[in-house]
Amino acid sequence: MAFTEFRPLDEKSLIEYIKAVPSLSSKLGSDLKVKEVGDGNLNFVYIVVSNAGSFVIKQALPYMRCIGESWPMTKERAYFEAVALRELGRLSPEHVPEVYHFDHTMSLIGMRYLEPPHIIVRKGLIAGIEYPLLAEHMSEFMARTLYFTSLLYRSTTEHKRAVAEFCGNVELCRLTEQVVFSDPHKVSQYNHWTSPYLDRDAEALREDNVLKLEVAELKSKFCERAQALLHGDLHTSSVMVTHESTQVLDPEFAFYGPMGFDIGAFLGNLILAFFAQNGHADQVNDRKTYKEWILRTIEDTWNLFHKKFIALWDEHKDGSGEAYLPAIYNNPELLQLVQKKFMEDLFHDTLGFGAAKMIRRIVGVAHVEDFESITDASGRADCERRALEAAKLLLKERRKFHAITEVISAIQKLQS
Amino acid sequence: MAFTEFRPLDEKSLIEYIKAVPSLSSKLGSDLKVKEVGDGNLNFVYIVVSNAGSFVIKQALPYMRCIGESWPMTKERAYFEAVALRELGRLSPEHVPEVYHFDHTMSLIGMRYLEPPHIIVRKGLIAGIEYPLLAEHMSEFMARTLYFTSLLYRSTTEHKRAVAEFCGNVELCRLTEQVVFSDPHKVSQYNHWTSPYLDRDAEALREDNVLKLEVAELKSKFCERAQALLHGDLHTSSVMVTHESTQVLDPEFAFYGPMGFDIGAFLGNLILAFFAQNGHADQVNDRKTYKEWILRTIEDTWNLFHKKFIALWDEHKDGSGEAYLPAIYNNPELLQLVQKKFMEDLFHDTLGFGAAKMIRRIVGVAHVEDFESITDASGRADCERRALEAAKLLLKERRKFHAITEVISAIQKLQS
Ligand SMILES: Nc1ncnc2c1ncn2[C@@H]1O[C@H](COP(=O)(O)OP(=O)(O)O)[C@@H](O)[C@H]1O
Ligand SMILES: Nc1ncnc2c1ncn2[C@@H]1O[C@H](COP(=O)(O)OP(=O)(O)O)[C@@H](O)[C@H]1O
Ligand SMILES: [Mg+2]
Ligand SMILES: [Mg+2]
Ligand SMILES: [Mg+2]
Ligand SMILES: [Mg+2]
Ligand SMILES: [Mg+2]
Repeated sequence: MAFTEFRPLDEKSLIEYIKAVPSLSSKLGSDLKVKEVGDGNLNFVYIVVSNAGSFVIKQALPYMRCIGESWPMTKERAYFEAVALRELGRLSPEHVPEVYHFDHTMSLIGMRYLEPPHIIVRKGLIAGIEYPLLAEHMSEFMARTLYFTSLLYRSTTEHKRAVAEFCGNVELCRLTEQVVFSDPHKVSQYNHWTSPYLDRDAEALREDNVLKLEVAELKSKFCERAQALLHGDLHTSSVMVTHESTQVLDPEFAFYGPMGFDIGAFLGNLILAFFAQNGHADQVNDRKTYKEWILRTIEDTWNLFHKKFIALWDEHKDGSGEAYLPAIYNNPELLQLVQKKFMEDLFHDTLGFGAAKMIRRIVGVAHVEDFESITDASGRADCERRALEAAKLLLKERRKFHAITEVISAIQKLQS
Repeated sequence: MAFTEFRPLDEKSLIEYIKAVPSLSSKLGSDLKVKEVGDGNLNFVYIVVSNAGSFVIKQALPYMRCIGESWPMTKERAYFEAVALRELGRLSPEHVPEVYHFDHTMSLIGMRYLEPPHIIVRKGLIAGIEYPLLAEHMSEFMARTLYFTSLLYRSTTEHKRAVAEFCGNVELCRLTEQVVFSDPHKVSQYNHWTSPYLDRDAEALREDNVLKLEVAELKSKFCERAQALLHGDLHTSSVMVTHESTQVLDPEFAFYGPMGFDIGAFLGNLILAFFAQNGHADQVNDRKTYKEWILRTIEDTWNLFHKKFIALWDEHKDGSGEAYLPAIYNNPELLQLVQKKFMEDLFHDTLGFGAAKMIRRIVGVAHVEDFESITDASGRADCERRALEAAKLLLKERRKFHAITEVISAIQKLQS
């Protein structure tokens, strides 16, 4: 009954484990129920409920859940997830579940159970449900976590210490490099798409030199630029929501990287959700209004992010952040110039990374339920092709976009 | 006679130390002579010669030599210098002195003594001596050390491990941030310049918003972009030469940063040497031919670097470097496109960083002997002002330059 060595748990042994851990068992009453609910790609997630309290236990095994033992993957990812959950939670406590317990040996995290009606945003987007606070909350989460972990707020000393620690999460970074920046642009056994409809489109991607040139630039930013602590996997299945609450989960890919990678992940997945809507339309609901809501959410998320990020910058401009020293960037005109340039570069990064993440969901190893749940293959391919065209445009021409409204217009044009 | 704790050495205690260290004492015969020769800003350097063998001992004290105990500086820098000397030496053995001994506790390095006629390049440049192999050797050193420590050659796993280690050299990075990217652009007690001649010029720098905007971009690259292992302080006093030999010293500022920072340091200091020549001209030598040699050396260094770097890339393009996977960047046309873009970006970084380092040598804390040795203040100021104008132009307009010959022309124009 000792857990002094790593051991994969199941619903039964988890109960033994909990009994051996006071910080967990003390949260529970009687009438214990344990249920494995993991629907993600990598890990095992158990919901533990009782008549008195509840929590979730997430355990990393030394391979990828969705593929099996043939694709090994370090279970150290649980350590980085726990560190990141705590750090992101400290910076944005309203939007990250509390960590109750972390067991390094067991690669196991105990955290707050996000009770129903919390559901994964992606599922809400497929069901056509509007979340009026989603843009507000996600922009808040991103603005705070990205700002406070960047050199805009931090000293070089704090920054380099944190960067060094997260260099340890290299296996997860490599996985992203492979599935986002490499596999979709070459022949790979893991790639698949809605065949035969998208065969030519997938081939065209592999022959698109301009696209590959831009993907290389994005990849090098991803690998080399330690701008802020990223969630690292901020798609719409890493967020649970109700009408009032927005909670960010699953930061096991966390590392210091370019801010636009997180913002792009979220916005890119909203764009995928948008292009999937035609496949979900039926006689009861043509999804027209809902598509407009998605576009508005994209627009609001960026605009609110912009506003909140700049507000944090202004608020702390005389603080200890070492990027723009007040003694140099003291005059309002210059500060505005600097902020404008920063946000414009970030906008272009966001579009580039978002687009790269869209592409990989259509022709790469891991697809999204937004499209997968469209049963008619030909209709699905039509949705996917439009999304792919949007992604290619945003990636290649991203520097020509200067406002989110221009992005929205481009998306609308490709939809009709 | 134990050296189990850190202790600053002097010429006498150094002899005791050497006797206690077989790997050092075994290199020596009798007739021992020890002489402190450090003329750098930070550390103590002893030349140890005997009738049978010789070496150099470099010791870091926990402050900056040139300022004294009032400016503390971690002696851990000796550790990073030793690690970097070994790594750079492994990659470019002909251009880095061999490390014989490293004592972490004592912050002490034993290395090959670069015997006369080796002199510091900067002194040769002031004396008007041509080094026909300098461009060849420095381009070789930079191409090899930068290429082999980048993701063009390395896997992400190797890269992140090395990046994490050198994050530890944060104090030295902070010093660079301060003296290169901050102090020259604000009022600082450490700044000085040839006053009153350059008073207006120094003030103009502090009021130049466009310049500050560009400096911010360079600083953020310096702090965030872990592109390759940099020497970190590659000015013309970190290189010793004879007509046949070129040796790079003093990589205590080493860390993973943007390649252009090293290349720019070297080229920027050559440009300073060029603009100082008028101050060294006399009736015997008008320095006209010598100035042409310096310009040719700048041109050759970049062009040879370009050639050698691309040759390494081509040679290893099917290797384990993870930046540009062969399966994606396989076609010759695309590879050329990618290389062109890479080298163009690197060229612009080089100009930007080189210019930033020129500026700081004219209005910042640490000046260069090229100018300091010009005794006539007004003549010196004239040289410095032209160098400053060149630097401002290169920094602000760097993206408009597409070939090193265009840079040479711009420099010539500012000289006449
Ligand atoms: N704290 C939680 N509360 C409620 N459900 C959760 C919680 N954490 C995870 N889940 C459920 O488990 C699923 C997988 O969790 P996730 O952390 O994304 O794992 P993976 O890393 O395998 O993707 C989520 O999609 C969600 O349905
Ligand atoms: N290996 C060596 N052989 C000969 N002279 C050396 C050697 N290393 C250093 N020196 C001399 O000592 C000076 C200072 O060394 P350096 O490593 O640049 O110290 P600092 O870090 O203080 O700048 C050099 O300019 C050079 O004259
Ligand atoms: Mg998940
Ligand atoms: Mg996950
Ligand atoms: Mg030196
Ligand atoms: Mg050689
Ligand atoms: Mg030094």
